[in-house]
Amino acid sequence: MTFAADTAVEDRGGGTFAARVPDGWHVVGNAHGGVLLSIAGRALAEATGQPDPVTVTAHYLRAGRTGPVTVQTDVVRSGRRFATGTATVGPSDQPWVSVLGTFGDLGEDSTDRSAPMWIDGAPPDLPDPADCSRAVPGDPFPPQFMGHIDLRLHPDDARFFEGVRSGRAHLRGWVALPDDEPLDTIAMLSVVDIFPPTVFNLDLPLGWVPTLELTAHVRARPAPGRIAAEVRTRFVTGGLLEVDGVYWDSTGRLVAQSRQLALVPRG
Amino acid sequence: MTFAADTAVEDRGGGTFAARVPDGWHVVGNAHGGVLLSIAGRALAEATGQPDPVTVTAHYLRAGRTGPVTVQTDVVRSGRRFATGTATVGPSDQPWVSVLGTFGDLGEDSTDRSAPMWIDGAPPDLPDPADCSRAVPGDPFPPQFMGHIDLRLHPDDARFFEGVRSGRAHLRGWVALPDDEPLDTIAMLSVVDIFPPTVFNLDLPLGWVPTLELTAHVRARPAPGRIAAEVRTRFVTGGLLEVDGVYWDSTGRLVAQSRQLALVPRG
Repeated sequence: MTFAADTAVEDRGGGTFAARVPDGWHVVGNAHGGVLLSIAGRALAEATGQPDPVTVTAHYLRAGRTGPVTVQTDVVRSGRRFATGTATVGPSDQPWVSVLGTFGDLGEDSTDRSAPMWIDGAPPDLPDPADCSRAVPGDPFPPQFMGHIDLRLHPDDARFFEGVRSGRAHLRGWVALPDDEPLDTIAMLSVVDIFPPTVFNLDLPLGWVPTLELTAHVRARPAPGRIAAEVRTRFVTGGLLEVDGVYWDSTGRLVAQSRQLALVPRG
Repeated sequence: MTFAADTAVEDRGGGTFAARVPDGWHVVGNAHGGVLLSIAGRALAEATGQPDPVTVTAHYLRAGRTGPVTVQTDVVRSGRRFATGTATVGPSDQPWVSVLGTFGDLGEDSTDRSAPMWIDGAPPDLPDPADCSRAVPGDPFPPQFMGHIDLRLHPDDARFFEGVRSGRAHLRGWVALPDDEPLDTIAMLSVVDIFPPTVFNLDLPLGWVPTLELTAHVRARPAPGRIAAEVRTRFVTGGLLEVDGVYWDSTGRLVAQSRQLALVPRG
């Protein structure tokens, strides 16, 4: 199964979509937050008639499960260039995630968008993918969803697997779908939640880092090939931490930014 | 009138609140996006029973106006530590803004929060407020809301007022409410939308920079005194730009981060 087929949605009318959280996309039994966002994104793209998630925010309310799931959407505004909608994923009275997103068309032909006007940043410096540390599912860690996405971490950032922490809340790596499946803007909503916790490289307890909220800005449709990404945490304060991600395609173009707010692991 | 009184909400039952977009809080007649978020935040704090906006996202749908306004809230989940709700501000069939937020209690006594565990950053280096450039309302710019908040920009960043651009998409400054009114976490939702556009310091057309989406993370209740803030744009691509803000209180503590996605001015 491709990622696209795994996250397909079926329109049941009235803004309701049927979907499936694909097998394997979980962390110790809890549905992966990114794949829930991709499923919500696919439903909202259909509901709004706009193909690309330009800015999408998810608030995670409860742990979800793999298997059949309902997505309830509501289109709040439809404009010429953008449309905004809300979605929930999960049982209607006890949703797992609440989503608010604005969708548009990031295709080259449909916009007046020209060359970048200001770029203060560059893709991370990464070794060849073959020389990076590939995350493969373990029991129970690394989590099972790593079998469905190809994440290769910079070796300098990945030594926490062996108990050696870099001391920097920073991870760099390559991300791709298996079998060269192209990554579209909906799949990017999973990519932005794919890295291990940045704080695994700090001197903090290792443990579950629950995401309260995740916002993704998708800035372009990725070109074929791997995504070069980095995620970083600047502030671990008051029991909370943010994770900022920047994502570049194989042509060196910025394709997305993400930020999430998560709870500090209690150990 | 204080900011707190200006943005008060009155519970009408059924999740509906009556409020007023205060006089003067506009940009060429359009209601200021931050004050709409503060009003939504105050309604959501009442609706959820949690005083502080921990992470709040607004999608701006249509231009709003000053004067009486309705806020419709819906609590999606109430947990022990956090509660999540949605809100719209404006006419119910044509809302101006759609909000999704998670609220909690950032008071010192109600949490298990300890000292910061990781801080990669520091307040911006700012001259004494008396030596900064105070933004005062003009006709039509600077906008009228500048008469209701005290923003003092670093002089090196503020020369675009005289037609001299720094060449860096970066602004630093002090923010306070007039008459030493304390800034609470609800007022922070206005502070995060108070700076002029960062791109006014780049070689781009000056013009309206409409915000599509704004997310604020409030990390602590500010201590009394001015907020030291900086906002920065790294990527102006595909007709879109992000603005990242970091906000520190007078004790040097991080109180908020913000990110918005906006449209490049068309000149």
